[in-house]
Order: sequence, then C-alpha cells, then structure tokens
Amino acid sequence: MLVQNDLLGYERIEIFQDSEMFSFSIDSILLASFVRHNKKLKKMIDLGTGNAAIPLYLSISTQAQIVGVEIQEKSYELAKLNVKTNQLSHQIEIIHDDFVGISNKVGKFGFDVVISNPPFFKVDHTSRTNKNDYLTIARHEVKMTLEDLIKETNQLLNNGGSFYMIHRPDRLTDILSLLREYNLEPKRMQFVLPRRNTNPNHVLIEAVKGRQPGGLVVLKPLIVYNKDRWTKAILDIYNIGRDSYVTESIKP
Amino acid sequence: MLVQNDLLGYERIEIFQDSEMFSFSIDSILLASFVRHNKKLKKMIDLGTGNAAIPLYLSISTQAQIVGVEIQEKSYELAKLNVKTNQLSHQIEIIHDDFVGISNKVGKFGFDVVISNPPFFKVDHTSRTNKNDYLTIARHEVKMTLEDLIKETNQLLNNGGSFYMIHRPDRLTDILSLLREYNLEPKRMQFVLPRRNTNPNHVLIEAVKGRQPGGLVVLKPLIVYNKDRWTKAILDIYNIGRDSYVTESIKP
Repeated sequence: MLVQNDLLGYERIEIFQDSEMFSFSIDSILLASFVRHNKKLKKMIDLGTGNAAIPLYLSISTQAQIVGVEIQEKSYELAKLNVKTNQLSHQIEIIHDDFVGISNKVGKFGFDVVISNPPFFKVDHTSRTNKNDYLTIARHEVKMTLEDLIKETNQLLNNGGSFYMIHRPDRLTDILSLLREYNLEPKRMQFVLPRRNTNPNHVLIEAVKGRQPGGLVVLKPLIVYNKDRWTKAILDIYNIGRDSYVTESIKP
Repeated sequence: MLVQNDLLGYERIEIFQDSEMFSFSIDSILLASFVRHNKKLKKMIDLGTGNAAIPLYLSISTQAQIVGVEIQEKSYELAKLNVKTNQLSHQIEIIHDDFVGISNKVGKFGFDVVISNPPFFKVDHTSRTNKNDYLTIARHEVKMTLEDLIKETNQLLNNGGSFYMIHRPDRLTDILSLLREYNLEPKRMQFVLPRRNTNPNHVLIEAVKGRQPGGLVVLKPLIVYNKDRWTKAILDIYNIGRDSYVTESIKP
C-alpha cells in the first residue's frame, strides 16, 4: 500500500513509501544531514537509494546533480515516482541497477560525494533468510558486501572526494580497516545514541579519498530521543527550510 | 619535588609523584577502571607503568600478580617507592626496561591482561622536541610506536587474553587496523568526553587475542565533568573501597 509522508523539510518534499516494503528511516535522514557541511558538492551518487529519501532531502540544501542507484524494482519505481512528484527530474536521476560495478556505467572518478545507507548485517549462512525477499536484500549483505561497497566507492570518487556512510558500531573495525585499505581515510565520525544513557546503535562516517592517514575527528554523540520526544538536534535535522517550526505531532 | 597524593581509593593507596615529571593522570585511572569487569585476571603486565598508578589502583580490586615495566629511571624509582610504601611488593613487580622486546624476558604468551597508557603523539620530525626529555618520552612515540606496542602485546598475551589501552580518538583507524592485524580483535570501546557537549578526547579499548572478527560493543560515553565538578561516574571510579564517600574536596 502506498502511503504519503511529508516529514522531509516540512511540506517542501513529499515522499511516497510502500508500507509493505522497507520504509525510509531516520538513518537515511541522519546520513543526508551529515553531508550538509560539504559545500563543494557538485556531483554525488547514492548507492542503494531505496525510495530516494537521501537525494530528496539533499535537494533542499544543494544544487548538486544527484544519481540514485537501486537494485530492487519496486523501490526503483517508487524512487522515480518521488522524483517526479517533487518536480526534481532536472536534478535527480534514478538508475535501476546493481551498484557493484556501477562505476563502469556512470564513469570512474567523477563524483565529489558517494553516499550510502547500506545493508547492515552479514549474511548468516546457517539462517533461513530468503535471499530474494525484499526486506532481506535491504538489510543483509545478500547482493553485496561492505568491501564491495567501499571498493566501488573508490572507483567512483575523485581525489579529495568524500564518502558518507551510516552503519552499526559493531562493524567499526571492518569499516575503518577497509576504508584505509581502499585509500579512503576516515576523517569525521559521529555516534548516534537512541537515548543519552544508551549505547550507540549507529555510527556516521565521512572518509576522504587520497588523504594522509590520521586526523579523525570524533564528534560529540547525537542523541535521538529525550523521553518520548525527539531531541532538538533531531528536530533541527528534519526541520530544514523552516527553522522556527516545532510541532507536537513529531513523535517517534 | 616529591608530592603526596592520596586520591586513589580514598586513603587505601598513597602515591608519590614528582611535580617536575609526568604526573599520573585521570587517563590511567579510567583505563585501570576499564579492566575491573575482568574477573579472570591472574597475571597482568602494565607497559609504560610510570609511577605505577595502574598497578596500585588494580591492587585494590584484584589479587592478580602485576608486572609494571618502565623505561625512564626516575619514574621507575618512584614506582618502586610507591609499591614499597603501600606494602605491595608481594603483588607488584616493577622492571626497569624498554617494553619493546620485554616478552623475551618475562615470558611469551603468559599474561591474561596487557594494559597500557602509551605516548599518544606521533613524533613530528620537523619539530624541535628533545628526544631525551622526560615529558617528551612520556607523551611522544620516541622510544616506541603504536605498532611496536601492539606487536609486543601479541607476544605477551595468552589466547583469549585481553589488551586494554587508552588513546586519542584521532588515532582510531591506526588502532583498530593494527589490533586486527596482530590478532587482537577489538571487542569493547568507550569514548571519554570532558563534558556532555564536547567531542571525546580519549578512547578506552579492549581487544581480545584470537577472537573472531566483529562483535565490537561501543559503550555509552563516559562524561568527566558536569560544570566544574566530576560526574558521579568519575567519582564512582575513584571511589573504590568507600562507596558512600563523597567529598567536596574532589574538584578538577
């Protein structure tokens, strides 16, 4: 069932989702927001764009050309619908493809930014996950591995270009080791805590291609909830375009 | 000038420091506290023990045999004085030596725990740091590198043994990559923030030898100050042995 959601930028962006599919989530918005400090942005690509939440969000704050790549057909159709509905076809292009190998089609070393909210979980070969299932593909490394993603990113970015990713803290050693192995030096990181007194459940990372090792800045943590309300930091992230807007209706 | 400090465990441990040297600091105490959950501890070694603050602190909560290694003679003498004054010679042995290669002398693969609060800063060959200066050696990688430390740790730990270290967040990629390279899998990590709204300035890490990759748990951050007072979390760490003791005199 298609549902409409107008949270992004308070009515400036409408976004359709399918309630039976993988909804765009706060992860994608936190990740997109993590890119906003990047002012050089001219050409970016979102690997595994889903219903295009990240390109739509970033269209509010940048004029950059944005490519979204999505392997799953239903999501791809929804992404196209969302771009069209928001009259953003001049800025956002959606490609229906596997992002592994996509640099051979969209061009190597031509992007300022690669962004991805990838599947978080390794495939457990003993589990009975259905490898063709929509949610399995969105959540598990069925179609790609973390290394595939980072390797492809290296092929897409220009020198000095940035890679932005959100992932789980328990994969941090994999993430930092692989980034360095593929010449993407981690430079900025922020942990996301559901509440002030909980362990982080997500980590935002920026790595820059071709930079000297070291100099990673770990930012103060981003706290999502205070009791049952979003924190001011989270409201500010959603609240692009209407800074004075605070609503009672925005609850988890 | 020798000064006396009885902060550790509120009067249970006396510790002498030299005001012209590198004082034991909160770093060492946070690190020692990070080990306390480890109940298997029978034999541990502190690489770069300084005036033995870490062995002294841990002697309160464990019966383990503890070796401290210190390359600088003045610190070594102070460490010995501190062990003697606290009547801990049966539990703590201080060795005056370089910890690089120490596994050849104290035995390979025989320790349950290796702990280190190492020099944090890479040597900048363009700087005019005096490489024989006491403080330079304590703070900069003059006598060893991070890789030397991790390599030596691998030679000291038994399989399943834990390595505990405190370091700077900006070295995190080096740290996690090197740990994995030397078969020490990062399993537990905590960032230390001076205040709630500041970026972390330290990170505590536990890595376990010979464990499967992955499964890193990032704990909620440890906050040091609330306004000009230590937080309850920090008071609890210092307050070993007298849980009800809260004092006005403990200020930063």
